[in-house]
Amino acid sequence: MTMHTITPAPQAPVVPTHGRLRPLGLGDVRITGGFWGERQSVNGRETLDHVGSRLESEGWLPNFDLAVSGGLPSGRRGREFSDSEVYKYLEALAWEIGRTDDGALEQRFLDVAARVSAVQEEDGYLNTRFGRPGQDPRWSDLEWGHELYCLGHLFQAAVARERTRPGSPDGLLGVARRAADLVCAEFGADGRVAICGHAEIEVGLAELSRVTGERRYLIQARLFVERHGRGTLRDIEWGRKYFQDDVPVREAKVLRGHAVRANYLAAGAVDVAVDAGDSELLNALRRQWDRTIARRTYVTGGQGSHHQDEAFGDDWELPPDRAYSETCAGIGSIMFSWRLLLAGADPRHADLIERTLYNVLATSPAPDGRSFYYANTLHQRVPGIPADPAGTSPRASSSLRAPWFDVSCCPPNVARTLASLDAYIATADSDGVQLHQYAPATVRTTLDDGRRVEFDVDTAYPADGRVIVTHTTDAAAPWTLTLRVPSWATGATLRIVTADFVQQRPVEPGVVEIRHSFRVGDVVQLDLPMAPRVSTPDDRIDAVRGCVAIERGPEVLALESVDLAAAGIDDVGQVAIVAGTEPVERDGRVWVTLARLPLEDRRWPYGAPAPETGAALAEVALVPYHEWAERGPSTMRVWIPETP
Amino acid sequence: MTMHTITPAPQAPVVPTHGRLRPLGLGDVRITGGFWGERQSVNGRETLDHVGSRLESEGWLPNFDLAVSGGLPSGRRGREFSDSEVYKYLEALAWEIGRTDDGALEQRFLDVAARVSAVQEEDGYLNTRFGRPGQDPRWSDLEWGHELYCLGHLFQAAVARERTRPGSPDGLLGVARRAADLVCAEFGADGRVAICGHAEIEVGLAELSRVTGERRYLIQARLFVERHGRGTLRDIEWGRKYFQDDVPVREAKVLRGHAVRANYLAAGAVDVAVDAGDSELLNALRRQWDRTIARRTYVTGGQGSHHQDEAFGDDWELPPDRAYSETCAGIGSIMFSWRLLLAGADPRHADLIERTLYNVLATSPAPDGRSFYYANTLHQRVPGIPADPAGTSPRASSSLRAPWFDVSCCPPNVARTLASLDAYIATADSDGVQLHQYAPATVRTTLDDGRRVEFDVDTAYPADGRVIVTHTTDAAAPWTLTLRVPSWATGATLRIVTADFVQQRPVEPGVVEIRHSFRVGDVVQLDLPMAPRVSTPDDRIDAVRGCVAIERGPEVLALESVDLAAAGIDDVGQVAIVAGTEPVERDGRVWVTLARLPLEDRRWPYGAPAPETGAALAEVALVPYHEWAERGPSTMRVWIPETP
Repeated sequence: MTMHTITPAPQAPVVPTHGRLRPLGLGDVRITGGFWGERQSVNGRETLDHVGSRLESEGWLPNFDLAVSGGLPSGRRGREFSDSEVYKYLEALAWEIGRTDDGALEQRFLDVAARVSAVQEEDGYLNTRFGRPGQDPRWSDLEWGHELYCLGHLFQAAVARERTRPGSPDGLLGVARRAADLVCAEFGADGRVAICGHAEIEVGLAELSRVTGERRYLIQARLFVERHGRGTLRDIEWGRKYFQDDVPVREAKVLRGHAVRANYLAAGAVDVAVDAGDSELLNALRRQWDRTIARRTYVTGGQGSHHQDEAFGDDWELPPDRAYSETCAGIGSIMFSWRLLLAGADPRHADLIERTLYNVLATSPAPDGRSFYYANTLHQRVPGIPADPAGTSPRASSSLRAPWFDVSCCPPNVARTLASLDAYIATADSDGVQLHQYAPATVRTTLDDGRRVEFDVDTAYPADGRVIVTHTTDAAAPWTLTLRVPSWATGATLRIVTADFVQQRPVEPGVVEIRHSFRVGDVVQLDLPMAPRVSTPDDRIDAVRGCVAIERGPEVLALESVDLAAAGIDDVGQVAIVAGTEPVERDGRVWVTLARLPLEDRRWPYGAPAPETGAALAEVALVPYHEWAERGPSTMRVWIPETP
Repeated sequence: MTMHTITPAPQAPVVPTHGRLRPLGLGDVRITGGFWGERQSVNGRETLDHVGSRLESEGWLPNFDLAVSGGLPSGRRGREFSDSEVYKYLEALAWEIGRTDDGALEQRFLDVAARVSAVQEEDGYLNTRFGRPGQDPRWSDLEWGHELYCLGHLFQAAVARERTRPGSPDGLLGVARRAADLVCAEFGADGRVAICGHAEIEVGLAELSRVTGERRYLIQARLFVERHGRGTLRDIEWGRKYFQDDVPVREAKVLRGHAVRANYLAAGAVDVAVDAGDSELLNALRRQWDRTIARRTYVTGGQGSHHQDEAFGDDWELPPDRAYSETCAGIGSIMFSWRLLLAGADPRHADLIERTLYNVLATSPAPDGRSFYYANTLHQRVPGIPADPAGTSPRASSSLRAPWFDVSCCPPNVARTLASLDAYIATADSDGVQLHQYAPATVRTTLDDGRRVEFDVDTAYPADGRVIVTHTTDAAAPWTLTLRVPSWATGATLRIVTADFVQQRPVEPGVVEIRHSFRVGDVVQLDLPMAPRVSTPDDRIDAVRGCVAIERGPEVLALESVDLAAAGIDDVGQVAIVAGTEPVERDGRVWVTLARLPLEDRRWPYGAPAPETGAALAEVALVPYHEWAERGPSTMRVWIPETP
């Protein structure tokens, strides 16, 4: 593991002190368009406005004003964790300002930061829900109170701001430091032995340690990580695994319990492990990731099988129709995977990030950036009912995207992730740059020894599998360009065109390294095979036995009832793919050959086998899963049965 | 539909004024042993003692004493509906006293009834949770307060007592009448247009109307039934369908929402329909039953696919591993089905009752009658953790039976059902007696026109398929004995042996009628085929595609890990039934031929098909589902995959 000494610090959400790879931030990498560039544009223009407006109209931001004017607790609105949505919004603003230098957003940031800062108490405490006369005392409900969770998000906001606008006079970093000092005093080695019911303070403290150089914040993060699994939280109906307080982090075998909490904790634990040089802990987390991916993750990358406790199910318990797959759990999984990628350079972590970006993160927001999925079902049996555009929706509604939720963690979480997405594209090591995700982009950076690296990425990915890297500066010495070849990309080819030679060769899934003294105009072209693929599930995933999923590149496809109408069929529950047929690509869409299932109800649905399913009926086009329900209420399924 | 004029009223829980069949109660039918007789014996000896002790130690019965002594609300314990558990316990005691004439239980009944009665207020109101200074006002939380629900159970207890000990001086019937009068005044046609969030008052009022002759209780029950689906309750996260307040009862197509509430409401609606002669409503309920059975019922008869809201899922949403299948929902389904059977004499309703009795009701209690399943999963992936014998357990724990729950509706519900089970065995009509369930029993009754019917039933069912009816009196005139032939019993045979003739013939599933002037010693013998059967699910039940269930007689069988150990396998998730092999019966058990599934984890569990499953590995014995987890923690599955 390499120690990083990076000056200036990258404008990135995660900047470990050690690791195989160091992040390249917004100063080094810019997404310039394409699939993600469009989404970033909608995010900056629409989603941030929408989230900001709702935070005002729902009262979650005015709660801070009430705290100053003495209007609490009577006037307080929102759940106990509503402060955190304001902090995620601040974080999203910070990245977006870093990305675009937008003056209006800057004013908005300063306004919100000032309103938040004004609430901080003398000793550093900051929360609108606890500690005032008439409110519950501070730290009196660590299971459900979310006070430390909220502070973790405050710290991430302050870190984002400091990395994008170092030394800004808004003072948010100072607010974060004072709050962190209080946390260390209250919960330090000599303080109360306790943790927060919702992990987040761990990543917040670790990053704050990195940005401030205060090692005691890291030590405090480590204390919180290590205290998990000691049963300091009360037992609840779903068990202490809900909070990851059932098994110590370094002894756990797999992620479990609430899927967002589990991933946030794992992310914080990687931060602690790499900065503290704790390879035992890091290896334990890698094993947990492996088993979680092998046994507890949906084909979309989504995680969480239970609605009731928003939790992972047991191994192999992955029902598509009851998939919870919370958007925030997907974001948490990206946080965890990205940290492991930086630590170890294993492309499997980038593979999962890609899968989760295209099939969870991109699924949540509507094209207009003003409504969202909270849960991401993989099978919709009944057409949804449009959400009230002015109201709030139950979070677990998985039929149509909704503008806001009673618990509205996902919209600002999507916003901060999209606004910082440039920082997840590429990394550097001592000898070069690694491209992990493919998007039109510019990369302009300097290696540790001063070698300059500059190139552009052009691609229509994922519509097209061709990725063209064009070098825009003359290297003084050779360096290594590393390209990820996704695990599904069997048959990829690489073509290198320089002034001196042209080389073309097949490349295997994993990574391909090209060491060369690139010159202006040199091109490295990766061609990824984009033919639709038929994926079958592991035999032990009971809920999708006998079904297949169709994928194309990084996108999981879905069958939606809207596309069945032409074949005279109402509902995705009435058809199966004819076994032995292959999906074909035509007119920019992927088509499958379907047969109709028997439609008559049996009086009792169990008994002798039903008559044979009918013959091939029609070719029907699929949609990328992330586009489902964009044409109105529909039924939908990702896993499609095959005829026996 | 026939109008019944029955004197004296049968000692039965449901005594409609009209219907094709009239119930035979404890005075006419007695279970004398066998599968159900043993369970009734454990219920009377152990479960009633256990429930009574817990009601005392949990404070739910002492709440009534505190109400008298002024110790409420400060000393109150239990949830808002805890009074109802006391009433179900009273109802269970009443049936058990009717069955056994046990003096100690009679003393206990009088004691509890007196403690309950003492709490009734001047105007008839009775509830320990509402209406006192410091408590919420009466009827202020109809969504969650359960006040009318509790009264419905009080009425059922008073009805059970009046039918088994008419005119008892305990005064409980008077308490019920005064409470019902208050309900009519408060919620009548001129009162507030409202319903209870948990149906139950409807069946309670209908039965109270039947036992008292007060038609206005029936009219009030009808008002409550008809008010459902008008949106008088507040909307909640899961929608008003949770309370069945989304669609009027006579317009609904299927049961939906909370599965206990849905069935209790449907049962009350049948009561109203038959007593009011409302055939439109009755037919609507029959259609709802049909669709619920065809699309929303587990192979065990269990209902409810969602843990979160204890609710029915969408059509075809029947995950075995997330089956909620609450014991009380099974009991509610029996209540609904029994009422439809009485109304229409369709043997399909008795078929479902049998299935639910053997595979839900019998599954809940442990052999010692002192611990219970609340939820009844059909697939246990991880061995359970034994429940604390002195504690209370989360209700949704579906791993091992537990002695008591935070919400402990199921134990007293099991107790009242087992104590009254004699009343679900047989019915009468103008020309004879119908045997619906097979158990060793005596039947001694008189038809409307005075013809005497007396016979004994001998059987080891379900261990053995032979049912022998031996007549014990000489009939003065011919009458019709009707025997149900279960829907699965293809190949059944009937043998009649009288002094004059012997007749043997095959009979089809449905019912078989034998009209004869039976004399002492005449025998009617039904032989039901008990060979194990392989059942496949409807193609649209996605969660069990590619799997089979093995059934034998009325029992659904299960594969339990305890029985895999001999084959060197830990877990039911590691095996499949070898396609094309048949289950065989040997040494009193049913054996299936299993192959091992691939055990290695794929790094990513979706992609090209896995290598072929291995060859046949071992024959392994199944257990009746109702016996699972009686040998300690285990994994278990009802639906077993077949090798491709």
